Amino acid sequence: MNIKPLGDRVVIKVLALEETTKSGIVLPDTAKEKPQEGEVVAVGPGRVLENGERAALEVKVGDRVIYSKYSGSEVKMDGEEYLILNGDRDILAVVEK
Amino acid sequence: MNIKPLGDRVVIKVLALEETTKSGIVLPDTAKEKPQEGEVVAVGPGRVLENGERAALEVKVGDRVIYSKYSGSEVKMDGEEYLILNGDRDILAVVEK
Amino acid sequence: MNIKPLGDRVVIKVLALEETTKSGIVLPDTAKEKPQEGEVVAVGPGRVLENGERAALEVKVGDRVIYSKYSGSEVKMDGEEYLILNGDRDILAVVEK
Amino acid sequence: MNIKPLGDRVVIKVLALEETTKSGIVLPDTAKEKPQEGEVVAVGPGRVLENGERAALEVKVGDRVIYSKYSGSEVKMDGEEYLILNGDRDILAVVEK
Amino acid sequence: MNIKPLGDRVVIKVLALEETTKSGIVLPDTAKEKPQEGEVVAVGPGRVLENGERAALEVKVGDRVIYSKYSGSEVKMDGEEYLILNGDRDILAVVEK
Amino acid sequence: MNIKPLGDRVVIKVLALEETTKSGIVLPDTAKEKPQEGEVVAVGPGRVLENGERAALEVKVGDRVIYSKYSGSEVKMDGEEYLILNGDRDILAVVEK
Amino acid sequence: MNIKPLGDRVVIKVLALEETTKSGIVLPDTAKEKPQEGEVVAVGPGRVLENGERAALEVKVGDRVIYSKYSGSEVKMDGEEYLILNGDRDILAVVEK
Repeated sequence: MNIKPLGDRVVIKVLALEETTKSGIVLPDTAKEKPQEGEVVAVGPGRVLENGERAALEVKVGDRVIYSKYSGSEVKMDGEEYLILNGDRDILAVVEK
Repeated sequence: MNIKPLGDRVVIKVLALEETTKSGIVLPDTAKEKPQEGEVVAVGPGRVLENGERAALEVKVGDRVIYSKYSGSEVKMDGEEYLILNGDRDILAVVEK
Repeated sequence: MNIKPLGDRVVIKVLALEETTKSGIVLPDTAKEKPQEGEVVAVGPGRVLENGERAALEVKVGDRVIYSKYSGSEVKMDGEEYLILNGDRDILAVVEK
Repeated sequence: MNIKPLGDRVVIKVLALEETTKSGIVLPDTAKEKPQEGEVVAVGPGRVLENGERAALEVKVGDRVIYSKYSGSEVKMDGEEYLILNGDRDILAVVEK
Repeated sequence: MNIKPLGDRVVIKVLALEETTKSGIVLPDTAKEKPQEGEVVAVGPGRVLENGERAALEVKVGDRVIYSKYSGSEVKMDGEEYLILNGDRDILAVVEK
Repeated sequence: MNIKPLGDRVVIKVLALEETTKSGIVLPDTAKEKPQEGEVVAVGPGRVLENGERAALEVKVGDRVIYSKYSGSEVKMDGEEYLILNGDRDILAVVEK
Repeated sequence: MNIKPLGDRVVIKVLALEETTKSGIVLPDTAKEKPQEGEVVAVGPGRVLENGERAALEVKVGDRVIYSKYSGSEVKMDGEEYLILNGDRDILAVVEK
């Protein structure tokens, strides 16, 4: 992956949303905001805190994650659809295999 | 539970809302925002403070909690309905058994 | 009381609002926001500051307090009406007996 | 005065607004926000800073103060009208006798 | 001047706005926000920072200053019109004689 | 380049947007906000943190970057179009060659 | 120049906007916000940080700068038009001669 996200951003590969995803997570179709599933392909160094340190992100490349729908910026590369998300704000959880 | 919440997020199992919940808590039906009851199934490491430390969350797996209605993101897994909440902001109290 | 409030939250028992409350405080009926009176029944550990410490709340169980109307979340238990408030923001003063 | 304000709050006794107040201050009647005059009857311990200290308030009981109109919560006690104000935000100045 | 401003507030005497003020400053009448000129008559101790220190204000009694129009609270005393301003936010510059 | 950006600002040269950019990145034409590609030509010293340090920016002159559309201020020089962006907020990632 | 700006403010002399300014910078006339050019004539001491230090401004008297249009307060003196700007927020870059 030749996109290197900056700060607390993360690049994820959007996973096709079957009704029941491979990991058994079903993202219900209620009107409310439906979180999405994707795979982490690149992780930024984390945001800079007011004491000058960086707050490393918890996710790593290869993690399967649940993230808030309608977040991030779309980027397409070699036919794949990617999203550049804000790691702290948009990614809710990691789905352990 | 194979969902690992990030930062100050918490995954709870939504408890069916009888008028009088098992713990004797009745969440009145007034127009005002009615808090809900649920059980904690996974807890994140807490948010990062500006001094770089993490502020651990007060709740633990198994706690029965009261949380603000209309908060969090819905996720369904193995037929159960879960919510991914913000621990500090959305969870109001623990109901001691 | 088996509700344990989190962070800087406080559980109070709403006191029936006679025109002149037992402590001599009259909460006038002007259109403006009328503060309310209640009794503290449970106190959270306080909010976490950016230096990692907790800012303990000033109120304690048994205190009679004045709080901003329309604040907090309602919870009913064993026939009594309780409110879960934000201690710092919603509670204005303690009424000394 | 048996009302003990919390945090950076202050209880003041509202002074009847003659056109020229005893201290010579005239609070003009222009459409713009007209500050008001009152006397401090109780002072809170001050707000908690992010380093855990409290920022003591500058006013003391007995001070005659000028405060922003339309601020605070009304409370009546023993026939007197009081306001619970935010000391830092609502009180503009002390009028020296 | 018997008004003692609190925190980062400053009391100024509003200078009559001739087209060209004594100091040669002309405050153009364009529709845009026109800054005003006044003289400092009392200065507060400055705002409290999160480390507990006070940030002293840069202006002193007697300074002729330029401030943003429509800011502050009006107070009249002994026939003179005064404004209680926020020193950091409302006062733009000192006009050196 | 004789424009020296201040604080956490960055000057970039806007790259003409072919459907598939040289680096293989396709910025899809969906209604959603489409990030853009550009080349860094000047980098500011970074923003000042509350502890007085500067948070250096991650990008350097020559980097090919993806940035949020509709951000920054346009400047034209010697026939080339440049944008002055906020490095932390507007630049999402570096595209490695 | 007898205007001494306070805090992080800067006084600039507005440069007449020819289509191509002397430094070769053309500020395009697109509908989008067009930055402006001016010369620094006075610089404030910088804003006070939460640790009590001042964050000195990067610009100095004589610098030719690019700033966001529609920012600052207008002041006219001795026939010249000046703007009092917020140094950190409104000034984007220095144009090196």
